[in-house]
Amino acid sequence: MERKHEVSKAVIQRLPRYYRNICELKAEGVQRISSRALAERMGLTASQIRQDFNCFGGFGQQGYGYNVEKLKDELGTILGLDAGRTAILLGAGNLGRALLNNFDFSASGFRLLCAFDANPELTGKSFGGYEVRSSDTLDAFLAEHKPDAVVLTIPRGNAPEIACDLVEHGVRGLWNFTGEDLHLEGLGIPVENVHLSDSMMTLCHLIGAQH
Amino acid sequence: MERKHEVSKAVIQRLPRYYRNICELKAEGVQRISSRALAERMGLTASQIRQDFNCFGGFGQQGYGYNVEKLKDELGTILGLDAGRTAILLGAGNLGRALLNNFDFSASGFRLLCAFDANPELTGKSFGGYEVRSSDTLDAFLAEHKPDAVVLTIPRGNAPEIACDLVEHGVRGLWNFTGEDLHLEGLGIPVENVHLSDSMMTLCHLIGAQH
Repeated sequence: MERKHEVSKAVIQRLPRYYRNICELKAEGVQRISSRALAERMGLTASQIRQDFNCFGGFGQQGYGYNVEKLKDELGTILGLDAGRTAILLGAGNLGRALLNNFDFSASGFRLLCAFDANPELTGKSFGGYEVRSSDTLDAFLAEHKPDAVVLTIPRGNAPEIACDLVEHGVRGLWNFTGEDLHLEGLGIPVENVHLSDSMMTLCHLIGAQH
Repeated sequence: MERKHEVSKAVIQRLPRYYRNICELKAEGVQRISSRALAERMGLTASQIRQDFNCFGGFGQQGYGYNVEKLKDELGTILGLDAGRTAILLGAGNLGRALLNNFDFSASGFRLLCAFDANPELTGKSFGGYEVRSSDTLDAFLAEHKPDAVVLTIPRGNAPEIACDLVEHGVRGLWNFTGEDLHLEGLGIPVENVHLSDSMMTLCHLIGAQH
């Protein structure tokens, strides 16, 4: 498993989908799958899959299919799910709490350490087993624990300033739910901007495009 | 504004991003913007933007730029935001409640009518001003009010059966948060499958790819 060259963002964004489908196949008891069968399941073409996997050295033998268990492990390693990354969550409002209570951070490669919120009434409370700490203690926490990523569930507004501040304190990636696109690629920091409204608007359009 | 031919899914998925950026420009007081300036803001190329807009007949005059207000209205109409679509939410657990409390459905083109949950303790409660009703009354509600879309925030498991049942009752689109991919295109029903873990895993990979 060797990365041959710079891999495109489009391929990288398909990796979690591959991983998810392979996990489902494993849970279904499937031990081996052809690129054609995997393609059919995922609505892709077999050649697309082979091409994507070749970016990482390829995982199968021609005409023999992929070993599901092995593929799951290899994709997991490429994704860095076993790299022991850590994260904190900033903003324990409704959305933050929904994530704390429901989202399986460890399945996505992160050990969530705790949450922070500016509201003193939330300090010391726990959601989903994660403690909420005072924002006043954030800088000291960052210095001591050096989390890799921050989940930003604060309201939009001063998100760009907060993001830059976090990066200055050593944070290496942001999962951004503020609704405000953050672009820190110039600083070499990856950001995943989540816009739930985009998919709802897409749905709105597609409903209208029905015949 | 006339749709020239079948528009690709990739273009359609960029429409909400265009709309979002144009709304921000309007809020910033910008009245006119060139495809080049819009491209820079969005990390696209000017020719990509012109090509996308041409799918809908184009909105600007060469060398003169786009009228922000007019573009906002036209994109909104294409998205169907003013078409008066309605939706209900199924599953008022943490995620469902986070959406009820926080998500601006009307800004995404839908009037949310109410929520449904199987848990009798939630019946009659309200979140974000939306009433939770008993799942037992769902079929009668669908027959009477014919909502266009359903927001699926039930746990995964029997999501495919429930989805098919909803479609049989006339639902025309699904916003699917169950974590289980639903494919109803065969029935002509659009589904937006939301997988939050995909973007967190992408972030996990990108953090590891930093130099």
